[in-house]
Amino acid sequence: MAESSRIYTAALVVIGDEILSGRTHDKNIAQVASWLQIQGIRLAEVRVVADDTPAIVEAVNTLRARNDYLFTTGGIGPTHDDITADSIAKAFGVGIDYHPEAMATLEMHYQETGGEFTTARKRMARIPDGATLIANPLSKAPGFQIGNVFVMAGVPMVMQVMMDSLTDRLEGGATMQSRTLSAQIGEGTIAEKLGNLQAQFPEVGIGSYPYYRGKTFGTSLVMRGTDGALLDRVVAEAEALIRGFGAEPISGEPS
Amino acid sequence: MAESSRIYTAALVVIGDEILSGRTHDKNIAQVASWLQIQGIRLAEVRVVADDTPAIVEAVNTLRARNDYLFTTGGIGPTHDDITADSIAKAFGVGIDYHPEAMATLEMHYQETGGEFTTARKRMARIPDGATLIANPLSKAPGFQIGNVFVMAGVPMVMQVMMDSLTDRLEGGATMQSRTLSAQIGEGTIAEKLGNLQAQFPEVGIGSYPYYRGKTFGTSLVMRGTDGALLDRVVAEAEALIRGFGAEPISGEPS
Repeated sequence: MAESSRIYTAALVVIGDEILSGRTHDKNIAQVASWLQIQGIRLAEVRVVADDTPAIVEAVNTLRARNDYLFTTGGIGPTHDDITADSIAKAFGVGIDYHPEAMATLEMHYQETGGEFTTARKRMARIPDGATLIANPLSKAPGFQIGNVFVMAGVPMVMQVMMDSLTDRLEGGATMQSRTLSAQIGEGTIAEKLGNLQAQFPEVGIGSYPYYRGKTFGTSLVMRGTDGALLDRVVAEAEALIRGFGAEPISGEPS
Repeated sequence: MAESSRIYTAALVVIGDEILSGRTHDKNIAQVASWLQIQGIRLAEVRVVADDTPAIVEAVNTLRARNDYLFTTGGIGPTHDDITADSIAKAFGVGIDYHPEAMATLEMHYQETGGEFTTARKRMARIPDGATLIANPLSKAPGFQIGNVFVMAGVPMVMQVMMDSLTDRLEGGATMQSRTLSAQIGEGTIAEKLGNLQAQFPEVGIGSYPYYRGKTFGTSLVMRGTDGALLDRVVAEAEALIRGFGAEPISGEPS
């Protein structure tokens, strides 16, 4: 991963009626978010859209234009509701056809497993013109990259191996670091001084999150930035701030 | 809930850096999605945006214009990163001020609990002009409704009580029903006939989702529509389709 001082951003489009109906609880957003942090890329926006070509095209074209990278999850299987590859081709205004390498991989897979390489399964080898494949060691049907768009599977464990294969391949900025402090103190008690601290250190993002654990409650502060020394300084200030209210800060999330 | 034949749609904007950084796994999308299904309202799109006023304003103004309802979660607490109310006021081009009822509720709450009603906590009573409150029996700081936009808390249990209080208050269409069938058969095996079934019954949405359970795998089919009798007919067709490949359909998700 190349490192630079500019900020790199990404967006994610989660494609699938099953998320919008509540049938399936999304697990991919948090995985992609955490992985991007490590790559030094800021996840700027996520959209969840239906299995609907115009909705996919709109989201993809808006977000690929204003981010360094765009990731999609979902809709690359063999059934009639898997319309991601065609929608991406449409978004880029390119054709789509059976990709020789994807066809060979899938054909070998079904020979080995004894499954029939049906017309429907061949659909999984349809890849937009100009795209390169993203390997899928688990279930073989590949994802693909076209321009700055990375198309991945929706099944979380398949998405994960595809994403892992991209590790260190994308140009990112300085890695975002974070420090967490928690204390049994109300957000409203420390809010004003915390706002002052944020104003004093604009390069560090300070997030404040209330928590509830049975009968105790408190606040977790998450400090985020690319300069470790500066982060340590803000953490020390935040610790002093919390102690000033008679509470004891602990490092990390509350137990 | 009034019932009508037209389709009602909603969108959801999840507001918070903590989701985009991967720190917090969103739990609100699935809750809102499931609740909307029962209200006869289709969730058309979800966006996750940062604690950033322009991003919130853009998402809110785009989505409230093209949906019957827009819900937001997150960013209504007392700290500097809680900017939802101000962003909504900006999106609507209205002022924002301390709401007398919200002030009274919070003042009483802090009197009862012995907490100080700080300037920061008073921020939670700042409500855009023209909005009505959404009660929060749990932690008192209210949500609000302005136009077709419903602003709720980000903490899932607080979001849930706010949403529950809206049950049966929104006009929706016919309630969406769903039936699920599962079978130990590959998606690619049934995909072609399933596509034909979908083409035959366009009023019913048929979703196909692969599953993996240890060493067994298979497919779940979710059939969705507002006409129960038609749904039953499509389920019967899908059962016959699955049996045609020598597999046995079970009702519901795989165990």
